[in-house]
Amino acid sequence: MDDAHLIETGVFSEDVFRGKLLHVKRDTVRLPDGTQATREYIAHPGAVMIVPRFPDGKLLLERQFRYPLKRVFIEFPAGKVDEGEEPLATAARELMEETGYSARRWTYLATLHPLITYSTERIEVYLADELEHVGAKLDAGEFIEILTATLDDALKWLERGDITDVKTMLGLLLLARKMER
Amino acid sequence: MDDAHLIETGVFSEDVFRGKLLHVKRDTVRLPDGTQATREYIAHPGAVMIVPRFPDGKLLLERQFRYPLKRVFIEFPAGKVDEGEEPLATAARELMEETGYSARRWTYLATLHPLITYSTERIEVYLADELEHVGAKLDAGEFIEILTATLDDALKWLERGDITDVKTMLGLLLLARKMER
Repeated sequence: MDDAHLIETGVFSEDVFRGKLLHVKRDTVRLPDGTQATREYIAHPGAVMIVPRFPDGKLLLERQFRYPLKRVFIEFPAGKVDEGEEPLATAARELMEETGYSARRWTYLATLHPLITYSTERIEVYLADELEHVGAKLDAGEFIEILTATLDDALKWLERGDITDVKTMLGLLLLARKMER
Repeated sequence: MDDAHLIETGVFSEDVFRGKLLHVKRDTVRLPDGTQATREYIAHPGAVMIVPRFPDGKLLLERQFRYPLKRVFIEFPAGKVDEGEEPLATAARELMEETGYSARRWTYLATLHPLITYSTERIEVYLADELEHVGAKLDAGEFIEILTATLDDALKWLERGDITDVKTMLGLLLLARKMER
């Protein structure tokens, strides 16, 4: 498709904030009608999420306090890709660090863009099977509680609004669709 | 549940960037073990997404260039809540502004948190039925193309990776589950 009537072209780009976690950029862009506008966004290295599944079908989930929203959330394990790291290697590393499990079988599930309006983040989602417990080594400053749930129970939590983290919602709904085939 | 072993407490908070779109905060927090850490995040007023559905079941979608990822995305209409605005009013306003349609019947579908690691954003999702065309009035600088698709076709696009915007993926998957009941 010819998308010239939609495409914005970068004219100028600058870093406006470089913190420990966030890197904020502000670009000047040329709009399809030739006028200019400003775009502010987070430059992000990418992330992975893991849907860890035991042989009996139970899923491994985490409870973690998320400071921006000042609440505990139920989530699948996830983490940021280190520079030069393959997303699948990130997934294996984060699963091990956060839960103490390694997985022998990995299946790609989906690629997600969590916030296309103001972040470049993309999340690769993998299903992890044939789990083996090898012992967790949480990063300093990470406080995570592990829990397990059947897919049906986790979907009930989603339906009643107890799971609202989008990546986790999608992990559950995509797995449910995969199981129906 | 007693979550004292997970909860982080704010000690100090400062604004580190206030742009036209983004408001970035940096807080010092006390971790469950008493040590301190830094949290950087986007303070966001909240947003809505609309799943607009015609009487024949076809869905109204948009194609829009998203500069952070430098690509056109297929999305449901969405927008930021203005200060003091009810989310349902935002939904009606954004649907009208972006697509030119008003809806007579609104159904709450879900609440989503798109990026709990570094944004306070929450998205209220509504199903909009009994659409009536009243004419679009795009904001200056908004370039949006409208398209329609059956739920089945849109789910096929999702399966093959042509829809990766998480809010839109969730709108489709939640509607599909609702239809199955």
